[in-house]
Amino acid sequence: MADQAFVTLATNDNYAKGAMVLGRSLRNHKTSKKLVALIGPHVSEQSRAVLHMIYDEVRLVDVLDSGDMAHLAMMKRPDLGVTFTKLHCWTLTHYSKCVFMDADTLVVSNIDELFDREELSAAPDPGWPDCFNSGVFVFHPSNETYGKLLQHCTEHGSFDGGDQGALNSFFSDWATADIRKRLPFIYNMSSIAIYTYLPAFKQYGANAKVVHFLGNTKPWSYTYDPKQRVVRGDIQEASTHPGFLLEWWTLYSSCVVPMLQKEYGEQPFHS
Amino acid sequence: MADQAFVTLATNDNYAKGAMVLGRSLRNHKTSKKLVALIGPHVSEQSRAVLHMIYDEVRLVDVLDSGDMAHLAMMKRPDLGVTFTKLHCWTLTHYSKCVFMDADTLVVSNIDELFDREELSAAPDPGWPDCFNSGVFVFHPSNETYGKLLQHCTEHGSFDGGDQGALNSFFSDWATADIRKRLPFIYNMSSIAIYTYLPAFKQYGANAKVVHFLGNTKPWSYTYDPKQRVVRGDIQEASTHPGFLLEWWTLYSSCVVPMLQKEYGEQPFHS
Ligand SMILES: O=c1ccn([C@@H]2O[C@H](COP(=O)(O)OP(=O)(O)O)[C@@H](O)[C@H]2O)c(=O)[nH]1
Ligand SMILES: O=c1ccn([C@@H]2O[C@H](COP(=O)(O)OP(=O)(O)O)[C@@H](O)[C@H]2O)c(=O)[nH]1
Ligand SMILES: [Mn+2]
Ligand SMILES: [Mn+2]
Repeated sequence: MADQAFVTLATNDNYAKGAMVLGRSLRNHKTSKKLVALIGPHVSEQSRAVLHMIYDEVRLVDVLDSGDMAHLAMMKRPDLGVTFTKLHCWTLTHYSKCVFMDADTLVVSNIDELFDREELSAAPDPGWPDCFNSGVFVFHPSNETYGKLLQHCTEHGSFDGGDQGALNSFFSDWATADIRKRLPFIYNMSSIAIYTYLPAFKQYGANAKVVHFLGNTKPWSYTYDPKQRVVRGDIQEASTHPGFLLEWWTLYSSCVVPMLQKEYGEQPFHS
Repeated sequence: MADQAFVTLATNDNYAKGAMVLGRSLRNHKTSKKLVALIGPHVSEQSRAVLHMIYDEVRLVDVLDSGDMAHLAMMKRPDLGVTFTKLHCWTLTHYSKCVFMDADTLVVSNIDELFDREELSAAPDPGWPDCFNSGVFVFHPSNETYGKLLQHCTEHGSFDGGDQGALNSFFSDWATADIRKRLPFIYNMSSIAIYTYLPAFKQYGANAKVVHFLGNTKPWSYTYDPKQRVVRGDIQEASTHPGFLLEWWTLYSSCVVPMLQKEYGEQPFHS
């Protein structure tokens, strides 16, 4: 459907790499939805060009320059910069329904069925399971909701300093109101769960549809040897499943790197 | 109501200490329900006597000696010994509804409202949040259900080797069927959550009603200095909140130790 879209966000070139892999993974699994990337002003021209090849729409969100409510909100809470940029997805009112996905997620199976759900549908966060994880969520673009969200953030801030805290206190009945809004964990499987309850991962992990590389070490923080097909870096330390990490890197090196190389030409870029 | 009960389980003297503290914490918070302790044959006479002072009913469950379905089940799956003992709670058919609580839980507020819920209600497990944690759950005693559970365990085993895996595969629609069966996390707050998502604990932890000391290090694994009111042991290493640990030990040393001392008389016991 042309009025439904997957939306992601990248405010810099590293997260842009994530967005490229995510977009490719959605295309590889034959999504019928539009793909939208929100980008910040610091994303390079080259990255923008590659994003344009993968995404239907690449939209610059410059909160500081916007001169609207978001700008005002940002003046009051400069700490919530990326959060305000993420909330911008609610202004995509040329779509009737969207699924937001963090740039550090990877789709491993078609997930178009998420569009059967309503706002705000999301999967539980493994840390505090009465909170939803804001890495994957279904929402209805609406300028009215956008205004209320900005107001809520300016007044109450965010209990965790990021978008997840703000969204959870805004959509505060998520845990108790409607089971349909509770997405199965396999739609936002964070690798952290693998280590805290390995037997459950062994039992249910094979059904994963979206892998979320949450935490400090992102896939692009590692290095990859494409000849040997191995990821290098302190994998032990990070709570990342080596198999999914390899899947991310395989996609990145086979589909994304060639596009980036073309854009950067003679100039070096850090793959 | 006389036909509703909180039920716990202790197969040895250490878990019996936990059961004593749990029972006292339920009484201190003025429960109107009956208290039942299931015990295994290895619990000492002295511990049984103290449990009798706190619990309305102390019931010996000797799976190996039972000569019934449970015995047969146990012969096929000797690895699931404690699990089969826990499942025995379904045979308490002189109660219409019960809440099972692990012996390593502590009640910090009256929770009688849990009896408004139906079988099988439980809180999400923070490790894999589409599984419920089997440390606190609402159930309806029934010999029919008991038989089905035993059969399920014998046929399918348990994906985590314990009761949680077995119960989750038996009550497999918990995550998707009915939001009322999803207890809020504050009814089974494991200290692990404090470390994985501290801001959420700071935001919501003050509402905790049940604390669950899950994992390898139990409250009784530490030592306590009652004069200085400090708990000793490697608290850093364990994922236990020092405040709740202190609450457990305060209750244990003030209410339980005097009862144990009376029972053990001249004989030494390890507090
Ligand atoms: O500097 C940043 C930080 C975050 N993000 C976006 O915000 C999301 C949430 O941040 P992150 O994934 O790092 O948080 P985590 O999932 O690890 O909690 C990212 O996936 C990106 O889409 C971004 O574009 N730039
Ligand atoms: O040797 C044992 C192990 C377990 N239990 C009972 O089974 C429950 C579940 O085990 P535990 O709490 O150790 O598991 P965890 O919550 O750490 O996963 C305990 O609270 C006790 O009620 C017991 O009586 N004896
Ligand atoms: Mn993320
Ligand atoms: Mn326990």
